Amino acid sequence: MPGSLVETDARHVLHPWADLSALGKPESLIISQASGVEVTDSNGRSYLDAIGGMWCVTVGYGRTELIEAMTAQARMMPYFTPFGDVTNQPATELAALLAELAPGDLNRVQFTTGGSTAVESAVRLAQFYFLSQGRPGKYHVLSRVNAYHGSTFLAASLSGKAADRTHFHYESGWVHHLDSPGYDPDVSTVPAEQRLAELIGGMESAIAEVGAENIACFIAEPILASGGVLVPPPGYHRATLELCRRHDILYISDEVVTGFGRLGHFFASEVKFGVVPDLLITAKGLTSGYQPLGAVLISDRIAETLASAADPANPVFSNGFTYSGHPVACATAIANIEVMRREDICGHVREVGPYFIERLRELRSSPVVAAVRGDHLMACVECRVDGEAGPTPRNQALARRVDSYCEQAGLLVRPYENLCIMSPPLVVSRQEIDRIVGILAGALDRAARDRAAGEIC
Amino acid sequence: MPGSLVETDARHVLHPWADLSALGKPESLIISQASGVEVTDSNGRSYLDAIGGMWCVTVGYGRTELIEAMTAQARMMPYFTPFGDVTNQPATELAALLAELAPGDLNRVQFTTGGSTAVESAVRLAQFYFLSQGRPGKYHVLSRVNAYHGSTFLAASLSGKAADRTHFHYESGWVHHLDSPGYDPDVSTVPAEQRLAELIGGMESAIAEVGAENIACFIAEPILASGGVLVPPPGYHRATLELCRRHDILYISDEVVTGFGRLGHFFASEVKFGVVPDLLITAKGLTSGYQPLGAVLISDRIAETLASAADPANPVFSNGFTYSGHPVACATAIANIEVMRREDICGHVREVGPYFIERLRELRSSPVVAAVRGDHLMACVECRVDGEAGPTPRNQALARRVDSYCEQAGLLVRPYENLCIMSPPLVVSRQEIDRIVGILAGALDRAARDRAAGEIC
Repeated sequence: MPGSLVETDARHVLHPWADLSALGKPESLIISQASGVEVTDSNGRSYLDAIGGMWCVTVGYGRTELIEAMTAQARMMPYFTPFGDVTNQPATELAALLAELAPGDLNRVQFTTGGSTAVESAVRLAQFYFLSQGRPGKYHVLSRVNAYHGSTFLAASLSGKAADRTHFHYESGWVHHLDSPGYDPDVSTVPAEQRLAELIGGMESAIAEVGAENIACFIAEPILASGGVLVPPPGYHRATLELCRRHDILYISDEVVTGFGRLGHFFASEVKFGVVPDLLITAKGLTSGYQPLGAVLISDRIAETLASAADPANPVFSNGFTYSGHPVACATAIANIEVMRREDICGHVREVGPYFIERLRELRSSPVVAAVRGDHLMACVECRVDGEAGPTPRNQALARRVDSYCEQAGLLVRPYENLCIMSPPLVVSRQEIDRIVGILAGALDRAARDRAAGEIC
Repeated sequence: MPGSLVETDARHVLHPWADLSALGKPESLIISQASGVEVTDSNGRSYLDAIGGMWCVTVGYGRTELIEAMTAQARMMPYFTPFGDVTNQPATELAALLAELAPGDLNRVQFTTGGSTAVESAVRLAQFYFLSQGRPGKYHVLSRVNAYHGSTFLAASLSGKAADRTHFHYESGWVHHLDSPGYDPDVSTVPAEQRLAELIGGMESAIAEVGAENIACFIAEPILASGGVLVPPPGYHRATLELCRRHDILYISDEVVTGFGRLGHFFASEVKFGVVPDLLITAKGLTSGYQPLGAVLISDRIAETLASAADPANPVFSNGFTYSGHPVACATAIANIEVMRREDICGHVREVGPYFIERLRELRSSPVVAAVRGDHLMACVECRVDGEAGPTPRNQALARRVDSYCEQAGLLVRPYENLCIMSPPLVVSRQEIDRIVGILAGALDRAARDRAAGEIC
């Protein structure tokens, strides 16, 4: 009974990012089937899924190989503890595969249950790294405004999106937010070099103010995803890495979204941005979303220091989870990597990604579009009423209307504030890209007409 | 190649609770197959799994119904976002089932990826609850010495086991640890009533010192699990709940270990200890460990207050994870509950649980056993050399030897410090209990002889 399911959901579930003022109201969309790049709701309506589940369903839905790997592993051995000196075959093999795919000497893996727990583990590892070397004060963390790193206490404190700062408690004593590094050449009033100099100058000032001797790490998404697909100016990644190296601050690259093919490579840090981080975080595309799994990749240099600085009185690295290296999740990830390699899905993204961005950029001619930005299969259309900038109530109402018209026309492009953020499955074809852009163009046109008729004001 | 797998693991994995001084040494035990209550390593050796994976494999390994439910859901719809107003059938149905199984008005569920993230969500929710009602200072948390609540920054800060406090950074400004509440009538020198009065007096003093107006919540495992299967004195749970109610402090019951049948009931808080908490945390047994999943159960009273106190300017509850309500994990949990109900596994635990404890208590006659304690299928044998108390190096060496002899004889009882903690699958039979106790008795005898021969000193 779809009807009663909606009521059951309203009665019993507190969703992530729920609107509390609507708690208990039966309004949910129930997604019940999925195949390829399409999902179907409980009323039998199908949609092209332009958000890829949520940045994660990369190889598409209904992939037999992933499901068979999951099933076979669950039959063979569905779980055993990964603590201490116990392991299982899929976790071991996946770790080796990740080391092979990752840049530089990122050859050691600590598994987690998703992105937030991987962020936790990476930052905690950075703090441990310095504390175990007798530098107990070096535990502060640098993040950025508009970053998104997850939803545990620490991950949420690292995140820097104003809209996500609600009535929770956040750490502010030792977490510091640098300026949002997004640079859009279409709309910026200053040259990229100038913006870069400002950003790096700001980071230098922050390091001087906090004191390099107090800072354990800098954490950064190569492209800020949920913050609005914000691309830093050229040279930003290398310059921030260099600053970190100079001050003995560990560089953590959060590739939860940018990794696993979304930008056309398994990892974007080195190939796209020229940096080999000390720690690299992955999740989402790691299993194509079929299973909860995250991982921190650790450089050999860091791991060797951890080993050589081990405290003889208590050499234990007391971090990790019951479900770290879960065999079923790891087996699924291995199958996912096999599919990605065999079908050269990264190559496909490198081919269709520029086409996606190029087609989306046509939408800039719409009177209700403020900007279109992105890189390969990670993109964003920013909506605006007249010249109004940012996530104002009117701009958000406009974006909600665009979203609703897309949904009516069979496209899921759930908006964030006044942005339509898109991250389709990586197997999306040119024809499907045309369909996405066509529906979105139609929705923008309708919303623009509504605006002209005074319906959004 | 098992050999090369061990080397691959040593080269590429950083395990939870890894011994950093042994990092890179190929020593891991690889568990590769499992069936019923037994697991098999990569060399073909089988073991009776007396730790239930890690407190979690409750219905045993190789359960066709769980695997089929997992597979069918992955085929139908392996993932879609749970954010905002989107949901899926298994998450909805599981939420309703949990509301049915949980005590009192714990009728609303926020899903997470495991125990640590559920602890995070519960504590963050408690803080949000007070902040959204205009009480921004009421965010401190009371926990206990010897508690274990997980391994994120906040969860690890709430945990109170000395051995787990290594070179990480912990929150100490707003997390407060009350005395360890374990009371063992076999070894205690004071009557239970006196110990209870001391513990409650200590909690009252802590509340007075921190200020009730600053405390959001109290978090407590009904029986402290990893801390050493510590059972509080009778009346402790009700008295702490009463203190919380009097001071408007939310009571969070962490039933990650005690829930899902380990003490003979789906949840132990009310049936065993007479308390209906405001928030209840579950994980592990929820899926029998077959899938990573956790949940916070929220009382209607709390949920209604969250809704009525919603901030019109930003009514969003910005907490949750990509994998919250993962459809494959939720479908597995539903199948797990169906198996547990149909086979009346809780009834089985109520029947064999007392036998397990009774048989284990025979081991108290061993000269190297300091204490045996537990409740139903959650138990602990504490090892000691002579009269030496606690996790001293000699006592830990002794326990490691007991563990090693058990492993040689086909039983997995991994020790924690100087404790052999046990949590077998709930389907364990009387004969298997006899086998566990028999092997453990033999291992203790061998270790006692080693000690007499001066080998452990």
